[in-house]
Amino acid sequence: MSLNETLTEQKSVLLAALEQDDTGTLDEALPELRAADIGEILEDIAEEEEGLVRFQALMERLPIERRANVLGYLPGELQLAWAAEIADDALLLVLEEMSSDERADLFNLLDEDRREGLLRRMARQEREELKRLASYEEGTAGAIMTSDYVAIPSGMTVSQALMRVRQTAPDAETVYQLYIVDTEGRLVGTLSLRQLMVARPGARVDDLMIKDVISVAVDEEQEEVARLVARYDLLAIPVIDAEARLVGIVTHDDAMDVAESEATEDIHKGMSIGALEDGVSRVPLWSLYRKRVFWLVLLVFANLFSGAGIAYFEDTIAAQVALVFFLPLLIGSGGNAGAQAATLTVRGMATGDVGVKDWGKLLGRELLVAGSLGLTMALAVAPIGIMRGGETVAMVVAFSMVVIVLFGSLLGMCLPFILNRIGWDPATASAPLVTTLIDASGVLIYFSIATALLAGG
Amino acid sequence: MSLNETLTEQKSVLLAALEQDDTGTLDEALPELRAADIGEILEDIAEEEEGLVRFQALMERLPIERRANVLGYLPGELQLAWAAEIADDALLLVLEEMSSDERADLFNLLDEDRREGLLRRMARQEREELKRLASYEEGTAGAIMTSDYVAIPSGMTVSQALMRVRQTAPDAETVYQLYIVDTEGRLVGTLSLRQLMVARPGARVDDLMIKDVISVAVDEEQEEVARLVARYDLLAIPVIDAEARLVGIVTHDDAMDVAESEATEDIHKGMSIGALEDGVSRVPLWSLYRKRVFWLVLLVFANLFSGAGIAYFEDTIAAQVALVFFLPLLIGSGGNAGAQAATLTVRGMATGDVGVKDWGKLLGRELLVAGSLGLTMALAVAPIGIMRGGETVAMVVAFSMVVIVLFGSLLGMCLPFILNRIGWDPATASAPLVTTLIDASGVLIYFSIATALLAGG
Repeated sequence: MSLNETLTEQKSVLLAALEQDDTGTLDEALPELRAADIGEILEDIAEEEEGLVRFQALMERLPIERRANVLGYLPGELQLAWAAEIADDALLLVLEEMSSDERADLFNLLDEDRREGLLRRMARQEREELKRLASYEEGTAGAIMTSDYVAIPSGMTVSQALMRVRQTAPDAETVYQLYIVDTEGRLVGTLSLRQLMVARPGARVDDLMIKDVISVAVDEEQEEVARLVARYDLLAIPVIDAEARLVGIVTHDDAMDVAESEATEDIHKGMSIGALEDGVSRVPLWSLYRKRVFWLVLLVFANLFSGAGIAYFEDTIAAQVALVFFLPLLIGSGGNAGAQAATLTVRGMATGDVGVKDWGKLLGRELLVAGSLGLTMALAVAPIGIMRGGETVAMVVAFSMVVIVLFGSLLGMCLPFILNRIGWDPATASAPLVTTLIDASGVLIYFSIATALLAGG
Repeated sequence: MSLNETLTEQKSVLLAALEQDDTGTLDEALPELRAADIGEILEDIAEEEEGLVRFQALMERLPIERRANVLGYLPGELQLAWAAEIADDALLLVLEEMSSDERADLFNLLDEDRREGLLRRMARQEREELKRLASYEEGTAGAIMTSDYVAIPSGMTVSQALMRVRQTAPDAETVYQLYIVDTEGRLVGTLSLRQLMVARPGARVDDLMIKDVISVAVDEEQEEVARLVARYDLLAIPVIDAEARLVGIVTHDDAMDVAESEATEDIHKGMSIGALEDGVSRVPLWSLYRKRVFWLVLLVFANLFSGAGIAYFEDTIAAQVALVFFLPLLIGSGGNAGAQAATLTVRGMATGDVGVKDWGKLLGRELLVAGSLGLTMALAVAPIGIMRGGETVAMVVAFSMVVIVLFGSLLGMCLPFILNRIGWDPATASAPLVTTLIDASGVLIYFSIATALLAGG
């Protein structure tokens, strides 16, 4: 049975029990499910007609700690819907059980009055920490980090540090990577629990720790954080402020979530689709429309240049209507080759494989590869050119194919670098944009070559 | 200073020291670098002219354990180049230090004679394990798992288990997640080191462990493994054979690597580019050509249908040449909208957001969104239609736009489901394929509408 089928079944069991007010079954079935699965089931239920009421009822049946966990798996909109129905007292209890990063995220969704009210009822330390975590800009290390890490004061012995780990274990997001800080709170080293466990109990952590710590600044972009975690196979990466003080950590699972959503965003951008706030099957229709329409309409106007090009060459076309036959083929091929080149460059830049300095090298490689591709495609199309319009037309078509594929590929390869230089996201060099640019250029190239060769012939 | 700049600088230091045979500097600089960074620097050096000799010399300067680590970060081809220059004795020493999964990968690259020779010189247990790990099919859980995990026999007490962790710590890939096995080697539960550390020393692991373990079969696809690790925020996932015996684990960092390379593959497939064996800046030119040419040439022939369509409607075109003006625009817009729809569906399926059962729901949504998109684009293009060819042409163009965008979007949305149904990878519904199909259909739709409306007018 696949994961989806299992979940669908579990959902029916829960809904049936809820329907019959069968609290026994509910209290038995719910704890056996994992938080991630409950989250998905609840999300599914909330979407259905009148589903929100049932969603709230099921949330109520979860023990507080579980509820806090499940909340972290729900989309913001649903967290908000849940919070709206809950009194401040109950909300505070759940907030307390949430991990510090998820608490700050939910807090940021609430309106200001509610936030003020909640803050007033918190202990001072808690309040300060929440305000701090909630203040970081979205998309930065600060916004995805947690403050539930294990800090070990410099100077401690191994056995003291182990004791500290045991004390902190219930609350810390991870206890497997320990951070050694000086009296000012500055990060001076790191030590894995594994190293600590095999060390002599009387040794000092300062003598065991790795001093050259990989860390990120609190305003570092989250993509870069995810890239470092993946590159160095880290369990967690410490986050420091401008004074080198340790302010949080980003754990591997949060980094993996970032990497996944960045990949989705890149893939969508590659098709000129704006960033969606949720999965495609759930995002509101209006939002889906909005994220797609901008570039489509823009490209309508860009495409008019192709039309203008055609209008300019009306005489050539009228003289040799067979030329139109090859038009979709030529501009389509150029667009495909160019979109491939752009995609390779954009993804290479995103994974860190391609740097700005590699520009010249890639250009040389693309020149060779695209030239070969163009020649291959010209050979494929030449016989059809002869069949449909004779040798001259075949020559025009084959020659145009080489030039258009070469031009399109080079444009596709260079565009991400150019966009990057002017401060845009290279992924803006999406397939639709590249294709449209090549369409317009392809028309000009094709009919220019045709006019030249046919006039001479 | 960016990561790339730092690496370039470190590379120059290493190369200069090597040039001057300055072993002091080398032995000082190398240990300070991280294995991932040394790997990248060495890869860079190996690519340069005569670089392989320098690459080998630098590898020689690394302590054996370091060398084993760095090897894991090098592409297979370079690992092979290195192994070819090394005697069996030296190779065995390094193999021993590698993690079991990387050892099996390198082993699989060697030719059979060499493999046999190496196996003969290994201890029996080592040999059996290596043969086993090397035997799993690429792309499965078995091929990416490691056998360096901590197994705790069922029945042990907490203090016995802690002792076992300390003993295994130097060799295990992770000691933070422990796996409890019965006398037959079957996985019966899991326990985190965190739980173990806070438990009463005399308690039995069987009373503490989680019995409902998330595990994967040894032949499970690696994408699914990565998806489960991400979904349940796991440090590692246990891998079991058909008899439920624990045979290995896949750690979070290996899962993250899989997720990243799968995302890259999906993005490339979205442009009809075959899977590359390395980054785009490093893969051999011939390979880059091969991975791109297949679909490009195939699409050349597919595009001929557009041409055939045009030929069929030659009379309509001759009567109203202004129609050609809008041809690139209409088929381009349909292609863009269709490619967007395909991308959204394919990525949704890859991340697990869209299941096969969501087909009907997505169809309804796409109908509404694509209809709105088509209307918007028709409104944008209608004024130009009036300008260039009068009201009738404007009507033809606007009406065609709605139909083509709607048809293209629905085709793009459905194609991944259809491909999936016939057992193909949904990602084959790439932008070039969708665009080409829509190009051909767009020509037919446009000129059919034109023929009908113009004949009537």
